[in-house]
Formats: sequence, C-alpha cells, structure tokens
Amino acid sequence: MAAADAEETEDEQTPDVESAPIGNLSVVIRAEVLQQVVDQLLTVVDEAIFRLGYDGLSVTAVDPANVAMVDIGVEPGAFESVGEGMFPIGLNLQRLDDYIDGASGADPITLTFQPETLSVEIEHTNVEVEMAGINTDMMRDEPDIPDLDLDSEFTADAGLVTEAIENSALVSDHVELESAVDDGKLVICGHGDTDDIKTVLEPDEMSEANFASDAVAMYSVPYLTGGSTQGSKYSGILKPVSSGTDLQVRFAEDTPMKMDYEFADGFGTVQMMLAPRIQSR
Amino acid sequence: MAAADAEETEDEQTPDVESAPIGNLSVVIRAEVLQQVVDQLLTVVDEAIFRLGYDGLSVTAVDPANVAMVDIGVEPGAFESVGEGMFPIGLNLQRLDDYIDGASGADPITLTFQPETLSVEIEHTNVEVEMAGINTDMMRDEPDIPDLDLDSEFTADAGLVTEAIENSALVSDHVELESAVDDGKLVICGHGDTDDIKTVLEPDEMSEANFASDAVAMYSVPYLTGGSTQGSKYSGILKPVSSGTDLQVRFAEDTPMKMDYEFADGFGTVQMMLAPRIQSR
Amino acid sequence: MAAADAEETEDEQTPDVESAPIGNLSVVIRAEVLQQVVDQLLTVVDEAIFRLGYDGLSVTAVDPANVAMVDIGVEPGAFESVGEGMFPIGLNLQRLDDYIDGASGADPITLTFQPETLSVEIEHTNVEVEMAGINTDMMRDEPDIPDLDLDSEFTADAGLVTEAIENSALVSDHVELESAVDDGKLVICGHGDTDDIKTVLEPDEMSEANFASDAVAMYSVPYLTGGSTQGSKYSGILKPVSSGTDLQVRFAEDTPMKMDYEFADGFGTVQMMLAPRIQSR
Repeated sequence: MAAADAEETEDEQTPDVESAPIGNLSVVIRAEVLQQVVDQLLTVVDEAIFRLGYDGLSVTAVDPANVAMVDIGVEPGAFESVGEGMFPIGLNLQRLDDYIDGASGADPITLTFQPETLSVEIEHTNVEVEMAGINTDMMRDEPDIPDLDLDSEFTADAGLVTEAIENSALVSDHVELESAVDDGKLVICGHGDTDDIKTVLEPDEMSEANFASDAVAMYSVPYLTGGSTQGSKYSGILKPVSSGTDLQVRFAEDTPMKMDYEFADGFGTVQMMLAPRIQSR
Repeated sequence: MAAADAEETEDEQTPDVESAPIGNLSVVIRAEVLQQVVDQLLTVVDEAIFRLGYDGLSVTAVDPANVAMVDIGVEPGAFESVGEGMFPIGLNLQRLDDYIDGASGADPITLTFQPETLSVEIEHTNVEVEMAGINTDMMRDEPDIPDLDLDSEFTADAGLVTEAIENSALVSDHVELESAVDDGKLVICGHGDTDDIKTVLEPDEMSEANFASDAVAMYSVPYLTGGSTQGSKYSGILKPVSSGTDLQVRFAEDTPMKMDYEFADGFGTVQMMLAPRIQSR
Repeated sequence: MAAADAEETEDEQTPDVESAPIGNLSVVIRAEVLQQVVDQLLTVVDEAIFRLGYDGLSVTAVDPANVAMVDIGVEPGAFESVGEGMFPIGLNLQRLDDYIDGASGADPITLTFQPETLSVEIEHTNVEVEMAGINTDMMRDEPDIPDLDLDSEFTADAGLVTEAIENSALVSDHVELESAVDDGKLVICGHGDTDDIKTVLEPDEMSEANFASDAVAMYSVPYLTGGSTQGSKYSGILKPVSSGTDLQVRFAEDTPMKMDYEFADGFGTVQMMLAPRIQSR
C-alpha cells in the first residue's frame, strides 16, 4: 500500500515540481500507534522532535533532570503510507494528544508537513488541524542513549513489574531490584522506615532471565510508576506500557537500567533508560 | 388514565369545597422526563418558575448574563395524570434534582402543590418530600424568546455537534459555524493563536440541511459545551442532550443561534437560544 | 485443614522448642474476610488492636469522639488455619489496607507474629511484608459495648437503610428513626430548615420488625453514611456494608442505636453502636 501511494504521488509530481516535496512530506499512521508514541513521550517531556518519512518515525527524549530517557522507533511497516521525503518537526505533545483524541484504533491519521509555515496538517475522521511546529533549533538537543554493561536481565509481563514497583511505593520512594543467581528469582523490594515489602518474581513468571551475578540496584519509584517526590510530579515511564506487554529489563549495581518493549505488531520499539539512585552506605 | 384521575378528584370535591383545588393541583410525571427538564434548566439557572397542570408543563429561563435561554414545554401526553388545575411554583433546581434522584426511568413522580404553604409535595418510590417553593414575585421575569430570521439550518446527531464544538475548544473559547451553500457542508471551526481545528459535517451526516447563504457565525464555547472563561464556569447547554438525539440548529451571521430537540417520545420540546460573539474585524 | 496445619506445626516443634511459639503464631485468612474487617474498622479509627489465634479474630474500636463503636469477631471457621497460639498486635489500618490490596477474593493471606520485633509478617500472592506493630500499651483502651434496652428493632437490606439515611442528608445532618407500632412501618426522616424528606420502609421491605412502642430517635448522618460536619470528615460506619446484606437495627429514644450484620458466611459478625443526638425541645 505504501508503494501504491508513492506511485500516485509521483504522478502528481509531473505537472508541478513545486508541490512535489509537499506531497511527499505526508505520512499516514494508525491512531493507536501514534497514540502510544505520544503517551510514552509525555512521560518525560512536553515537546519533542519527530523525524517522520520514508524511514518511518524516530524520536528521542530525556526528562529535564536527565534522569529518564525514551527512544522510540517505528518502522515503515507500521504506516499506511510513508511518502518519499523525510521531515523533522518539533511538536508540543499535549496539544498533539488533544488533536488526535477523536481518532482511535485503526483510524488512519494523515500528518503532512508544510515547510513554508513550519507547521503540520493533521487529518483524521472528520477533523482537520493546522498545528504550528516548534523551531527545532530552539529545542534541546536529542540525547544519545549510551551502551552499558548490564548483566542482570529478565523479561516479564509489564503489568507484573509495574505492580511490584507500586508495592514498593507503599513504603519508600526507592525500589530495589535484586537478582538471585542461585534460585533464579528476581525480587523487587521497598525498604521503609518501619516496614519492608518484597515482591518475588519466580522463574516461571519471567519468560526469560539471565543473572550473571547477585546484583542489587536502586531506582526512583516516581520516575517508574508515577507519583510525587520533593515537590515534583512524575507520570511514570511505565504507565503507558499496558499489562500483557513483554517488558525486557536490564540492570546492574549503581548503573542505569534499561527497559525495552515492542508495539504496533513489532514494528514499533521503545527503549527507556533510567539513572540509578546511589545507595548510601 | 388522566381522565380517570380527574373523575376521582371530582368525587372528592363533593363533600368539601375547600380541599378541591388541592386535589386538582397534583400531577404525575415519569422520572426520566422530569429529570431531563431539570438537567436542561440547570445549565442556565439555579431556580425557575414551573407552570404545571392541565396543560402539562412549561418553563423558561435565561442565564444571569442574558447570553443563553432555555424554553421547555411538556404536553399532557407525557404525564401519567395532569389534574384539572394549574399552578406556578418557583423551585430551586439543585434541590429538586437531589429529591428526585432516587427515582429513575418510568418511576412515577407525583408533584402536589400546597397553596397554603406555597410548597410542593414530591412523592416517588418510598420517598416523600415537602419542598418549600420560592415566591414567584421575588423571582426574575421569565424571558421571551424572540423570532429571528435564521437562514442557515441543519439537523444532526447532538453527539456529533457537541464533539465538533469540543474540538474547537482545544484551541479557542469561540466556535465558528460556517455553512457552505455549494457543497452543502457545515464546518465547525476553532481559530487559536497558533493552531486551527475544523470539523466537517458532510451532507450525509446531517438528516436535514438548508443553507440560504455562505454564513459564518461565532458563539461562545463554554456556554455550549461547558468550561471556564473569564472567571466564570459554565456547564454547557448542550451537555444534557444525549448522543443519538436529533438536534436542529439554526444560525445567521452576528445573530443568536437557536437549537431545538425533542424528548419524552416527542411530547417534550426544548428550544435553546444563544447570543452571538461579534467578530472583531 | 486447620487441624492438619496444627499437626504439622507440632512436628516442627519436636526438634526445636525455641521456634515453636513462632510457628504457632501464624494464621491464614481469606483476603475478602480480612478486607471487610479492615474496611469496617477504618470507619472509626486509624489503628486497632487485633487479637488473632486459635480463637479466630476479635477487635473492638471506638472513634476519637466516643460517638461510634465497632466490635468485630471472626470465628476460626472462617480461617484456613489459626495455629495454636494467640497474639495481640496493634496495627495501623491504612497501611494494613495498602499491604493486602494486591490480594482479593479467596486469596489466602498469612499473618505471622514476630514477638522479638513486635512486628507481623504478611504474605499473599507473590508479596511479603514485614510490618511494624504498635505497642499496645501505648494505645487507647478497647471499649466495652454496653448492654442496652432497645425496644424498636427491625432487619432490612443494608442498601435500603443506607439510601434512606442518605436521603435525610439532603436536608439535615441528623436523621430520625420513627417506629410506628400500629401500621408496622419504619420511617426515616430528615427535617431541614425549609424542606422535609421521609423514606418509608413498609413491613414487606423488612425481613423482621418488632416495635414495642412508637419511638422517635435521632442520630448523626455523617457518622452513619459519611460526610462532613463541623469541620470533621467521616467515612460513615455503614459504608463498608454492601447492599444485599441483612442489617439488624435496634434503637430507642435518646439512646444509642445498635446495628449488626454478618459476613464470611456467618463466621464473622460486626456490631456497631452509635450515640444518639439529643433532641432539643
């Protein structure tokens, strides 16, 4: 279908060279796919630079405090049509979220870049929006996600991991991940002033688990599952990950953790990275 | 049934002339019908003068700023019984709403005027309420709804119209209705500082559409679908109109709009009128 | 099963006398049963002394103003296992509520007293909690529920009684219960400044009704069904009693009322007592 679309655009190009790049700077994506991208980005930033076109979509964002990063890629296979061009555009995420709210499920959303006004035209159902872009020169540089040596690794239902971290939140703002090489368990702990709470993921609750050592690593609960701490409010990077999704988690002591999941039938991938809380000893 | 009721009342009249008018000043109405009346009135006022009796119910109200009016009539056919008399009574709408909350659907609600105490007795299910009326002399005069020449007119699902206006609210406090004679479309627009949003009602989404001219008319969004503006909060005159209801809308440039719908199997009619926002040019 | 469990514990006792009492100080209870106990206690206090062991569970609490008391007993039959010992432990109810939140329905919850740390270990699903107890010496003495001569008595669906009291709340902070010996009705009234509301329980809506006299008794609505009054907020002792539960109510003029219901298939009983509001005459 993407191929058919590209051909059609080429036909339009012949009479009018001026309009050709505009015709190409148009992509069509299913509402639920774009919604997942927006929901995940909103957990760390208010605005982001979208790179959209023949290569699909890529967008990377880091929260203002440099604690949490999100890196999202969607392959062309998840699009109804990707055109031949590629355009970067800075967008306010909350406004974009509002504008696509009336579309759902497989409803196609067309995004067309208007280079002369630096804006994007959004079309879906019976709605047409002209949305101003943000000059990307004025925006924060996109972060690089570093390579890290994370030798404790497991994959489990995102709902299970989220619930375990929320349990820790009952007693503390920090959560500890503890991998036990011997019995293959992963323990998620919160240590409070008077009370402690542990949630145990047994080997049969993890679709994969590779623990190279008995590691204990500590992270911020509000950044993971939402909440307030020290006057700031966080929505939690795990909040948009629905129960039933396979979440791969990799961590090591005093090192950032990485979490990965797929969406859009595997055409979309999200990688999240979260800085550790150093344990005072 | 109304006839049977009237006869019974006449029998009671014979021995005691004094009590006769009281027996007559009683109506029985289905809970869902009275609830719609109360919900619609609450969008503009806190208290209103109900005229209840042999002619059914009529009540008219205008909001304190004179921007939105509501005129409701319910024919005797929607009542279980209307009696032979007629009584006007001023009632606080929020309290009335509370008192009928326990009744729902077709539950009969009996309203009996007590002239000696200027109160109304409300009976439904296993509940009996004695509710003080408000002296109608102390209340604001009921407004007259003027005749207007409104030559752009369409009928569509109230849910569709409400959603289109809510879309406009994403970018502005004002909404523009634009009728296009040529292609028979009705466009509902919001113009924001940086973004614009349009919702298009195609001819096949309107059960009726008569546009005499290409008209553009502007109205306040909070008055229509709720919200806050300039420190005041509005619930929105369209809020009580459920999705699936045929809503007739009539408008013209720089002129109030009128919206009409029916309820109670056509025995009830609501007419709403909303003053325009004049476009600065 | 309780017997089997006890035997097993005895086997463990043989080699190590020291650990024996600890093994015994462990009970297993279904999540829904413990949840009902916690929900009911939370309507009057923040912390309570639980007595748990071979005799089941008993706990009594009175609200800080001495207006409402709750007395709960759960027989061993409602437990999966009660052990052979008995331990009293003071617990913060909101924290306990949080810790058992992940268990539901028939999920077994194990509570084990740790005498050396004065704490309780809570285990359910994949969660383990170490919860600090409160020194019972520092806690308020548990109240005695007095015997009272209450000669108006009826049993009805808790949902019906709650709804009738909430109706009264529309006009007043007080509710009156009126028993009518002649026609066997129970009337629940609120008297407001301008409006009155009555809800009538007909004889066929009460599974039992014994009225020795025409009594009128007045109680506080916020204590019964929740709400705010004089700057304090109450959750309402009737709130945790679900619709469909038989609620026995006993009252007399200017005397506390008592309300009783059963849960956990009749193995659990709750008695609530509420001081009267004296009528000014």
